[in-house]
Amino acid sequence: MKRIISSAVLMALVSLNSVAQRPVQRESFPEGSYSPVTNINRNGYPRVLSDNSVSFRVNAPQAQRVQIDLGGRKYDMQKSDAGQWTVTTAPQVPGFHYYSLVVDGVAASDPASYTFYGTSRVSSAIEIAEKGMDDFEIQDVPHGQVRKLNYFSKVDNAWRPICVYTPAGYDQSKDSYPVIYIQHGGGEDHTGWMEQGRVANIMDNLIAQGKAVPMIVVSANSNLSNGGGGGYSWTGMQPFLKEMTENVIPFIDKNFRTKADRKHRAICGLSMGGGQSFYVGLRSPEVFANVGVFSTGMFGGIQQANGFDLEKEVPGMISDTKNFNKNLDHFLITCGEQDQRIEHNKNIVAKMQAAGVNVEFKSFPGDHEWQPWRKSLHAFAQMLFK
Amino acid sequence: MKRIISSAVLMALVSLNSVAQRPVQRESFPEGSYSPVTNINRNGYPRVLSDNSVSFRVNAPQAQRVQIDLGGRKYDMQKSDAGQWTVTTAPQVPGFHYYSLVVDGVAASDPASYTFYGTSRVSSAIEIAEKGMDDFEIQDVPHGQVRKLNYFSKVDNAWRPICVYTPAGYDQSKDSYPVIYIQHGGGEDHTGWMEQGRVANIMDNLIAQGKAVPMIVVSANSNLSNGGGGGYSWTGMQPFLKEMTENVIPFIDKNFRTKADRKHRAICGLSMGGGQSFYVGLRSPEVFANVGVFSTGMFGGIQQANGFDLEKEVPGMISDTKNFNKNLDHFLITCGEQDQRIEHNKNIVAKMQAAGVNVEFKSFPGDHEWQPWRKSLHAFAQMLFK
Repeated sequence: MKRIISSAVLMALVSLNSVAQRPVQRESFPEGSYSPVTNINRNGYPRVLSDNSVSFRVNAPQAQRVQIDLGGRKYDMQKSDAGQWTVTTAPQVPGFHYYSLVVDGVAASDPASYTFYGTSRVSSAIEIAEKGMDDFEIQDVPHGQVRKLNYFSKVDNAWRPICVYTPAGYDQSKDSYPVIYIQHGGGEDHTGWMEQGRVANIMDNLIAQGKAVPMIVVSANSNLSNGGGGGYSWTGMQPFLKEMTENVIPFIDKNFRTKADRKHRAICGLSMGGGQSFYVGLRSPEVFANVGVFSTGMFGGIQQANGFDLEKEVPGMISDTKNFNKNLDHFLITCGEQDQRIEHNKNIVAKMQAAGVNVEFKSFPGDHEWQPWRKSLHAFAQMLFK
Repeated sequence: MKRIISSAVLMALVSLNSVAQRPVQRESFPEGSYSPVTNINRNGYPRVLSDNSVSFRVNAPQAQRVQIDLGGRKYDMQKSDAGQWTVTTAPQVPGFHYYSLVVDGVAASDPASYTFYGTSRVSSAIEIAEKGMDDFEIQDVPHGQVRKLNYFSKVDNAWRPICVYTPAGYDQSKDSYPVIYIQHGGGEDHTGWMEQGRVANIMDNLIAQGKAVPMIVVSANSNLSNGGGGGYSWTGMQPFLKEMTENVIPFIDKNFRTKADRKHRAICGLSMGGGQSFYVGLRSPEVFANVGVFSTGMFGGIQQANGFDLEKEVPGMISDTKNFNKNLDHFLITCGEQDQRIEHNKNIVAKMQAAGVNVEFKSFPGDHEWQPWRKSLHAFAQMLFK
């Protein structure tokens, strides 16, 4: 029974390698602690303690050094005589944090955690609940659907996956819906906003509360083979622009009941996706009347060193502000309050506002992570299509 | 820029830890070798060689022992002076194989591979192409959609995720469709058939070729909190039966345009899911007129030791075969030809056929793995609803 033994061996290794795999009832846990939803089967460890620090356990009798890499900080684990390694991290801010298990220098994902595509690999993660806030949780309201499709990209000459959220009632209705095109960050892909970003829960709850109109949310993968995702310049954005306007948007308008006009179309994104939304959104008013730029580092990058020239990057924004404003229904820039990008974002918003540009700025507690990005979508979606 | 450094650190670790992360063009590869689709970004390693052996590379200068666990066999990797570990496995059969990277005794997933939920954890995997066979590949035909939804389970008293494949044209049509309820194996979940099993490619291609009628395929998660998934007895199947008939099927019939009658409903599954399909399918003729049992170990388990009593397990199958046959439009049992379960399956099929039961048996090359399961669905779907 080769495969059975194989599974059995794997299972055994897993249970050896992570106390998290033990039935929870065998253990008593610190008061106020809980198993995060990112744990497989809500296993006991990793465990969030009452002060939002995280306690990790790994059984690795043969390992010389075991570390947890969480939030950019490496924690050395302590080994017991039984070969079990443990560590408790510093208190973490609420939200979603990628982490890695590092065994004798090899960073890999933890068998105790579900994995999420981020940092250009599958990564383990900890979801720390934000107390008293259930906007991102599944609730007893009408639910939409997250659909995985493939479209053919003439830019990549390949079939490419794409995720589409349709709101509750889409299948039963004959209505057409407005669309947000939402972009992931560097090292992430089309699954980021749907999994880490919790688009379905955010939109289901907003729509049920009457705070947002029913809309479709499309998450494409901007990691084009020719590097279309990167390059914070109009030239660098051309492959992504072509992919969006010639492949993605026509595919969505053909296959879904969309309101296929600029007024009912928005583009937004986080970090790298924020830069994409800035250039492609603001320079394509015939395509998008709504633009959201979340936590971009663009304004603090190389171009900021030379001074980020708004008029050069978006011709007409400063020289013909009246016309620029007329073409935009909503223009939102956001950043996390502990994100070092925030000062550059505040400065550029001040410049725009001084020139008379209709731009709104919002900040949310948190660093360059998913909780402020979820809150950015939560805020942006409420502004749109009303 | 805390998070940026964090990402940079992770990226650096990944590129240190897996040569697979190096740009492919830097290397020359063995003739006839390729990067499997299961590699992140089609990185260079792990690499399938022309004889279907797999070459692995891992950079781990500080590790004492690095192994690859593939197909139930552990391969010790050899360390170079530079701290790079390499190994080439025995030739593998075509199809999908889970594997683990084992660093100093800790089994984890390989940063170079996408992960798949199997063996009760997220596992790395290698997809070895079957030459001259593209039934499971995405082709230039009309494509359906894979949808992720949540339904409320009164059995678990919780929201539970479920995957639903809808065929090409579903959204544009007003037709109603027949439904296959397809069950995963032990240690897998509702994502198994959609990801590892490639349901969408299999169904899209069959329907485009006119070999199968357009149908919906539903993959539920049978890992109920009360252990509804397991227990190869009618008693043990009661929680799963309740979940299917009181929660899953009513939810699907309410939210999709289904032909909601026994003649247009099938249940099938692999391994543990095969046992579920056997009991729930054959003992609920008022619900299902079509049953597929793939690679079950049930006939070779404890009950086989006492002789698997068909009449006891499915009252009427032997004592009233005429009526039993009348209630079943299609009854298929399959097994991999290298799966040690095959003899028990052949024996039980012989018993059934000797008693006059209308059951069909098919076998496919391969062990207790996904390639024979994909081929089982490919065969079963062509028999149904015509």
